Amino acid sequence: MQKLQKLIDRIIRRININLRGLEFDCGPYLRPCIPDRKLSSFYAFYGITGHHPLRFSFSHSNLAGSYFLGKCRVDGSVLYKTDIRGDELKLKGDSFHYRGIKMAMDQDEIISVADSLLVKTLVHNKSHDPENPEVFQIKNSAACPFANIHGAPMEGSFLGAFATADLTTLHGCIVEPFAYVQLGELWHERIEAGQIWINQDYTFDFRYQFPEEVLAQYIRTEPGQLPQGRFMDFLNERKGHFRRVFDTVHLDPLPGVPKSASVSRYAVIIPKTRFGENTLVAQRAYLENSVLGKGANAQENCFIINSILEGDNVTAHGAKIVNARLGRKTFVGFNSFLNGLPDAPLVIGKGSIVMPHTIIDLEEPVSIPADHLVWGYISGPRDVEHNSISLKALCDIKRMVTIGRMEFAGWGSKFVEAFQHRIDHILEENGAYFDGRKKKGHAQKGQNIAYNIIQPYPMGMQKGIYPTIEIQP
Amino acid sequence: MQKLQKLIDRIIRRININLRGLEFDCGPYLRPCIPDRKLSSFYAFYGITGHHPLRFSFSHSNLAGSYFLGKCRVDGSVLYKTDIRGDELKLKGDSFHYRGIKMAMDQDEIISVADSLLVKTLVHNKSHDPENPEVFQIKNSAACPFANIHGAPMEGSFLGAFATADLTTLHGCIVEPFAYVQLGELWHERIEAGQIWINQDYTFDFRYQFPEEVLAQYIRTEPGQLPQGRFMDFLNERKGHFRRVFDTVHLDPLPGVPKSASVSRYAVIIPKTRFGENTLVAQRAYLENSVLGKGANAQENCFIINSILEGDNVTAHGAKIVNARLGRKTFVGFNSFLNGLPDAPLVIGKGSIVMPHTIIDLEEPVSIPADHLVWGYISGPRDVEHNSISLKALCDIKRMVTIGRMEFAGWGSKFVEAFQHRIDHILEENGAYFDGRKKKGHAQKGQNIAYNIIQPYPMGMQKGIYPTIEIQP
Repeated sequence: MQKLQKLIDRIIRRININLRGLEFDCGPYLRPCIPDRKLSSFYAFYGITGHHPLRFSFSHSNLAGSYFLGKCRVDGSVLYKTDIRGDELKLKGDSFHYRGIKMAMDQDEIISVADSLLVKTLVHNKSHDPENPEVFQIKNSAACPFANIHGAPMEGSFLGAFATADLTTLHGCIVEPFAYVQLGELWHERIEAGQIWINQDYTFDFRYQFPEEVLAQYIRTEPGQLPQGRFMDFLNERKGHFRRVFDTVHLDPLPGVPKSASVSRYAVIIPKTRFGENTLVAQRAYLENSVLGKGANAQENCFIINSILEGDNVTAHGAKIVNARLGRKTFVGFNSFLNGLPDAPLVIGKGSIVMPHTIIDLEEPVSIPADHLVWGYISGPRDVEHNSISLKALCDIKRMVTIGRMEFAGWGSKFVEAFQHRIDHILEENGAYFDGRKKKGHAQKGQNIAYNIIQPYPMGMQKGIYPTIEIQP
Repeated sequence: MQKLQKLIDRIIRRININLRGLEFDCGPYLRPCIPDRKLSSFYAFYGITGHHPLRFSFSHSNLAGSYFLGKCRVDGSVLYKTDIRGDELKLKGDSFHYRGIKMAMDQDEIISVADSLLVKTLVHNKSHDPENPEVFQIKNSAACPFANIHGAPMEGSFLGAFATADLTTLHGCIVEPFAYVQLGELWHERIEAGQIWINQDYTFDFRYQFPEEVLAQYIRTEPGQLPQGRFMDFLNERKGHFRRVFDTVHLDPLPGVPKSASVSRYAVIIPKTRFGENTLVAQRAYLENSVLGKGANAQENCFIINSILEGDNVTAHGAKIVNARLGRKTFVGFNSFLNGLPDAPLVIGKGSIVMPHTIIDLEEPVSIPADHLVWGYISGPRDVEHNSISLKALCDIKRMVTIGRMEFAGWGSKFVEAFQHRIDHILEENGAYFDGRKKKGHAQKGQNIAYNIIQPYPMGMQKGIYPTIEIQP
């Protein structure tokens, strides 16, 4: 174990040096999340298909987690129960556009994690960093449990629990718990806990700040302790179900999954759950007594319980949906928490967009109309007014508006357009529009995955460290 | 699947070219053993400990099987349910003796399998080839189900079903089904089915030939068909039990295994089986309602059912023991088949040696006295006389003797000495003599193994081929 402990110390020191301007010690937040006795008890797996470029290269790391569907290298890092998904990396021959400049990719993009410590983190999608289009790099950085790193290269940065860096290159930044950023690029900033911030240069700016007392109910972090609150309670209650799927090499195929759909064998599926055509259920998703309509997807770490999703729904990484009825083409963003009442499900009308990191935790019945944008915190009907706007009204905004704790500036129509474009893109990538021949996406391409399981040294000085592994076609 | 089929064709052609002098086509014997639909359905695993040098290198191969506890490389080969065990390879710094010449190893020995097709074969131990002490090489060769390759480098050679090449370097040879050779080195020979042949230059020569009609009951091979007979029936009846242990990633530790013993998590253990101190049970061993006394070992592919082994027993690769009582320090050689009567177990007295490839399949009760050598085929008491000799009487032989179908020439005492020395060596290597501090062997060193599971491309042209993998410390 000594080498692994030295490695962890070294990574923490590197991150702290990078964050020296912000006077922050990441160690006390990270160490409780990686208890010694667990570090060597969880295996890593990587997936192999015939569809995705293959290159895995691992050295001097603890790798417990999953790596798949794209090129990846990990050096001098600790990745604990972390999923690295490369199925949307740029490919050789793709072209890349940045402010009118077109660049052709002369090699496949690779995810590179170096000198970093990621705990229960999801890394997905391609880099938007125009300076290094071939490498989606995470270096000298750390992420706490249930953080999302989505197309967001970072160096010298720290993500708190349930934080999301989405299409934002971070240099020496701290993104506190449950904060969400989609900002293009950011230098040496500290984003406060529960801040939701989306900005596109000269076009729009969306900000919402969760009230401190609300946030504390759902997620609290103290140095030297594991994250606490309702999010963690919710996850801990369902943890046991994952053991079965991770402990078995070959699981029998699930009955009732259409040929055009994929349900990961590392997802938890509890009766009676039904799957429509073109549906996609990623690993570490949890589905219980729910219906996924045609083209709906359930991404990594999301939970869908006692709910009906009518079709073409996006449930982004880490979103939780309990006791709900979601109309066609609704979008539920990263790490949102939607909890209806058992006898009065939360209703969300078709085409509505639930912003990333939204909490709708009902004390009284609520119904969100069709084609609305929803954000923030809603516990009953009186909150809806201050936490939503119709997409039509949003499109009319041309300068600035404040609704409840949300501030919007810029072109509402561009914001709606960008969001709807992105939702369409996600559905397309996931194979929701597959017609039996064309428009294949992840649901169709990810059906035949072979999973390889790799384990660390079981004892001695190197306990918990994985051997050096190189895998190529 | 096309690439894998091409690879198989290419290997078969290479072997046939090597065997051209013997006018032999190995294809019809091998193809039925590797059905298309199964080639991509079985995974490979390799073990990692802190005790053994690590280096795995795989390219352009189907690898379904196990690789562990030593350096190994596989190139352009098909290894189907084959186990490669490197825990007795020579290590850097070891010295190697050959007819009075001493050579120091300047690197660890590696097992290298190239352009070969091995089906359900066991490869174990170190090479005795003085020309290439650093490489235990198997090249342009094939082996049929349940063959053993034991410290026996080979090129351009073919092993039939249940054949064993033991400490014999083979060049362009055919070893037919259930034949056993221990000859040092052999060029361009064909060893007949059921021939048991041990020779040490200028010292001794032991030969036994199974009667054709007896052999046909136990093992028959026809071109275009799977091997048939009682051996295959016996194995097929018990096949299902292995599925459970291979389908689970983490199995709970077995209760009642002493701290000084190892029981592979890839062995089948059926109640009520008991394990003494320093016992070793290898993967793919099968134990049912039996007792392994202190220091006893059960090697790969062996079956021990309704039997008591009193201690320090060696049950070599592929041996089967049913309804038997074995005294202390008895040895049962490779692929032997010992089958007592349910109400009158086969008794073998202490210190007795059951030669490799012996069949004792009782119709009437039989008891072998202590300190005897047993060979050939025994079905009742009247066969014992023609298929055994006391070690004492054997030691007195100085020239030549014929007993039943067995011919012995040379120094009986040297033969007994060599055998007993080897048994002691096996027990020592396996940790039978561990005293709580010193004399550690496989039973103690193999306790903490991490198993890594690797799988082939699941679809497309490369279906069944494994990616190129390189693993180093």
